[in-house]
Amino acid sequence: MKYLSDLAKSLQPYVPGEQPKEKTYIKLNTNENPYPPSPRVIQALRDTDAAALRLYPPPESDELRECIGKFYGVDKSMVYPANGSDELLAWCFPAFFVGAPLVINDITYSFYQVYAKLFSVQTQIVPLNEDFSIPVEAYLGMDKNMIIANPNAPTGQILSLIEIERIVRSNPDRVVLIDEAYIDFGGESAIPLTARYENLLIVQTLSKSRCLAGLRCGFAVGSPVLIEGLARIKNSFNSYTMDTIALKLAKAAIEDKEYFLDTVNKVKATRAWVSAELRKLGFRFADSYANFLFVTHPNMEASVLFEQLRRQGILVRYFNLPRIQNHLRITVGTDEEMKQLINKLKEILP
Amino acid sequence: MKYLSDLAKSLQPYVPGEQPKEKTYIKLNTNENPYPPSPRVIQALRDTDAAALRLYPPPESDELRECIGKFYGVDKSMVYPANGSDELLAWCFPAFFVGAPLVINDITYSFYQVYAKLFSVQTQIVPLNEDFSIPVEAYLGMDKNMIIANPNAPTGQILSLIEIERIVRSNPDRVVLIDEAYIDFGGESAIPLTARYENLLIVQTLSKSRCLAGLRCGFAVGSPVLIEGLARIKNSFNSYTMDTIALKLAKAAIEDKEYFLDTVNKVKATRAWVSAELRKLGFRFADSYANFLFVTHPNMEASVLFEQLRRQGILVRYFNLPRIQNHLRITVGTDEEMKQLINKLKEILP
Repeated sequence: MKYLSDLAKSLQPYVPGEQPKEKTYIKLNTNENPYPPSPRVIQALRDTDAAALRLYPPPESDELRECIGKFYGVDKSMVYPANGSDELLAWCFPAFFVGAPLVINDITYSFYQVYAKLFSVQTQIVPLNEDFSIPVEAYLGMDKNMIIANPNAPTGQILSLIEIERIVRSNPDRVVLIDEAYIDFGGESAIPLTARYENLLIVQTLSKSRCLAGLRCGFAVGSPVLIEGLARIKNSFNSYTMDTIALKLAKAAIEDKEYFLDTVNKVKATRAWVSAELRKLGFRFADSYANFLFVTHPNMEASVLFEQLRRQGILVRYFNLPRIQNHLRITVGTDEEMKQLINKLKEILP
Repeated sequence: MKYLSDLAKSLQPYVPGEQPKEKTYIKLNTNENPYPPSPRVIQALRDTDAAALRLYPPPESDELRECIGKFYGVDKSMVYPANGSDELLAWCFPAFFVGAPLVINDITYSFYQVYAKLFSVQTQIVPLNEDFSIPVEAYLGMDKNMIIANPNAPTGQILSLIEIERIVRSNPDRVVLIDEAYIDFGGESAIPLTARYENLLIVQTLSKSRCLAGLRCGFAVGSPVLIEGLARIKNSFNSYTMDTIALKLAKAAIEDKEYFLDTVNKVKATRAWVSAELRKLGFRFADSYANFLFVTHPNMEASVLFEQLRRQGILVRYFNLPRIQNHLRITVGTDEEMKQLINKLKEILP
């Protein structure tokens, strides 16, 4: 490790769910959407002029910002896209969080802790309730910067818009970052609140509800001062993080509201019957508001179940972490994939 | 600026050359390649399966790494691609540079200073010689981390492979980062040295010689320990920085060696005659080894010339910075574009 900085030596990078090269797995481990992107995205790809790739992309991504702003009813000056929502989350650390403690909860997207380490930000942990619900009262009047994933991952539980507003309003001098990666699968986005609360920043992704994990596009919505913070970091880091093709395809995806709603509804319908089937098999879990289920079974260790499913050709996600080492996170796939999951589980369970 | 960290408030972001939305300009301001990408890139775009975009990209970019490694005769474990070479340069700061002074020269890619500020790295400046050549002796035995752009930008001047090796060999305990963004236009890459010097990291881009500024792809080549440093930062920042399409198109570009050499040779041929013409018009400058010329004229202020050219529909780059405020950086375009440049200059010059 000679040549590495002490910081680099100390890091424990995030480990994403595996992307197996064999095609034989039913892949329920990274919360990808089981449906292809909108036909408009496919058309936009066909229409792309490859010759134009010789030129740099528009550095401020104006057209995409305008399109997202229009969809959500906010001005484009309140929108900021990036190379996946992870990039936006990363930028928030130097933009807003360095120099003060940051509040996160104990069971959430584990990348937050990795960013905190990379940017030397001290975290203050709020434990989830016993049932993994988010303890709203604990966040009130903390006067601290905070990140809340809503719905939370990997638990799938949610806060209402009223609860989010209470938290945002009671911490007026601090940045409240709501990570809405999964919001379209059952929650109500807090984007409308950004017009009234200057300290509220929302981050969303096109990887889940827009079926575009392979495109790398996310966006933030917030007050102009928060967008200025993001822009300062982006422009001190990488002038052009979204490429010309991704900008066009992301726009096409946002513009196809009908396909988006249809796809999300299909996932929700599948989630409903799979939830019922899993409960019949003895699994225990809270209702999910995301495109995954976070389940535990009284008769079989999650780690064992994980391995058995893997051997049977089904990949799910297992986290060997405190409080959740007996849980599995299972992505909601197509009906056909989930039928196979249920059948395999019937074979595996004692 | 409420809500911004003190760090964010203190930043002076990099300002890239403008990307005008009107199409009327002859654009010689951002060192883009005047030729479209390889026909293989265009074919790869046509062959892209949009449905596959629902899945995350391969996080370790194996195929592209293998392809680049093959081209340069190094193992894929020594190659690391990213979302533009800027992203790689940024990662180098937390990976290798934080906690110790970093040597750069006074006239070079101005983004280095921006990264240094973002990651709180102190810089030590080595001034270029009077004629803007790089003072090799000054770098010997410094025992400091350093970045050298070779050819240097915006000056276009170059170090030989022997000079690079002297610098690398004489700083064995520090990382020597050679930014070879423009190397294909006339220099000799130091990539072959990476097999022998564990402390040497090379960064290149597909934005210039591969005509793909709009795709956002760069790559690093270096010893496995340096690649490990980059991987640790990447995986603490953004698990998937290159999207599925960019990975494919970048591979197609690297594979078309013939088109690459042909394009580079065309740019070099244009540069040769334009250099002669500009000298006839009284411009002074050292021979350029990049796809731009860094010129000054005894009879007209660079800032005035810049404005006059702009008014005439030709965009070049002017930096209002110490030592170079009477210079212009002019990208080498097509023969036709450069003929128009020469004609306009004949009209403008006194």
